[in-house]
Amino acid sequence: MKKNITKLRVRYAETDQMGVVYYGNYAQYLEQGRTEWLRELGFSYKWMEENQVILPVTNLNINYKLPARYDDVISITTKLKKTPTFKIEFYYEIHNQNNVLLVTATTYLVFLDSTTKKLVKAPNYLLEKLL
Amino acid sequence: MKKNITKLRVRYAETDQMGVVYYGNYAQYLEQGRTEWLRELGFSYKWMEENQVILPVTNLNINYKLPARYDDVISITTKLKKTPTFKIEFYYEIHNQNNVLLVTATTYLVFLDSTTKKLVKAPNYLLEKLL
Amino acid sequence: MKKNITKLRVRYAETDQMGVVYYGNYAQYLEQGRTEWLRELGFSYKWMEENQVILPVTNLNINYKLPARYDDVISITTKLKKTPTFKIEFYYEIHNQNNVLLVTATTYLVFLDSTTKKLVKAPNYLLEKLL
Amino acid sequence: MKKNITKLRVRYAETDQMGVVYYGNYAQYLEQGRTEWLRELGFSYKWMEENQVILPVTNLNINYKLPARYDDVISITTKLKKTPTFKIEFYYEIHNQNNVLLVTATTYLVFLDSTTKKLVKAPNYLLEKLL
Repeated sequence: MKKNITKLRVRYAETDQMGVVYYGNYAQYLEQGRTEWLRELGFSYKWMEENQVILPVTNLNINYKLPARYDDVISITTKLKKTPTFKIEFYYEIHNQNNVLLVTATTYLVFLDSTTKKLVKAPNYLLEKLL
Repeated sequence: MKKNITKLRVRYAETDQMGVVYYGNYAQYLEQGRTEWLRELGFSYKWMEENQVILPVTNLNINYKLPARYDDVISITTKLKKTPTFKIEFYYEIHNQNNVLLVTATTYLVFLDSTTKKLVKAPNYLLEKLL
Repeated sequence: MKKNITKLRVRYAETDQMGVVYYGNYAQYLEQGRTEWLRELGFSYKWMEENQVILPVTNLNINYKLPARYDDVISITTKLKKTPTFKIEFYYEIHNQNNVLLVTATTYLVFLDSTTKKLVKAPNYLLEKLL
Repeated sequence: MKKNITKLRVRYAETDQMGVVYYGNYAQYLEQGRTEWLRELGFSYKWMEENQVILPVTNLNINYKLPARYDDVISITTKLKKTPTFKIEFYYEIHNQNNVLLVTATTYLVFLDSTTKKLVKAPNYLLEKLL
């Protein structure tokens, strides 16, 4: 399955008074990871939303091993876990600029019609890219 | 002009590695202040949005005197500066639990029709409450 | 085991363009839940930090069932899962003002000495309150 | 005076239910702008903090002309307004990928000794770069 590696620089706003990235802010990094994974496949999440498909998260699981720090350049590795059906599962690893593993995570998201908010199957334009 | 005082407790997530509230997070406190100002008048911003009026901010000005800290209980005082027309101006002060002044601020917001995104006058249901 | 219920109002800043609370922002709600759980026991997390104990999160798991929306008054129920050792486990439920269950979650946190960053046992002043 | 242009992609988390970037989140963009302005001069804000100088914001002023939207690639132009003394003033413009001006802003920051929290003059290593 395809994987994507996205780099981001940690912002001051993302730290807390413990001197490291606030634990809730990794959710944004994961989102940027899967967004770029999708873009690398050939289309954007923005385009999917404009075409009536939204992808809310139904489960988030993060293991925190070591903290990311201000001004670190982190690499988010995003991998698809299996062929999407009504849901899509990603596995992530976040490393810092010294290639130290900071975080592993998984997310489950579901495909919904943005108008009816009903479950729909993964769009064919996505599945075709994964063959 | 009517004023409102709203109390909030500072969250850990709102601090940064300087050990104080991140400067951008005060915008949320100001928003909670004017939201409760409106609620005290008798209706909610949520209700206004459901009734086709949105209120984007066009100017934000914050003077930072002393920092708010984790677990502080801050008081946000919100005052209307003058009778709203197409825009509405608020003045704010934020004090901590020891009544020390931390921040003064002003915001300008405009009334827009949520569908057309065109400027509209302040709704009568709001103006009537201000007489 | 003791449980705490904390109420918060959802802020505009916490929503995203899907019209609901952004999935990463629930981490802040959970933190407010366990902070108030601790305060109800008789001391604050702020006081613990000032006394050399910090509590970083090592695992976060959130199940999203239904979304919280702007201006909702949510109730965060926080329960201790078992007697803390070097780590402390919490279980959470978040309901909205209509008592609809929105989210369940767990977190693991560890006790660290704030200077050495080494693991330490749960402080006696905490364990005594749990008997 | 030197200027820097930094590009960032707008994150989903940065939008709100109005479908545009939340007004408080621009403060993070401005911070990234001045951070990269400093890095382009030859050193990092992280390094300054490690060398006992912190730069809290004392005034923030933002004019919102048009909204940034999800997935936009915005350009933050950061210019120094005059030679720093005890304080440093920046002027910013944010444009989107179509070169439309979205926001203008100014910030004032002061140089503080990170231990004593007293005002200090702009460090010579910074002033020398500005000649």
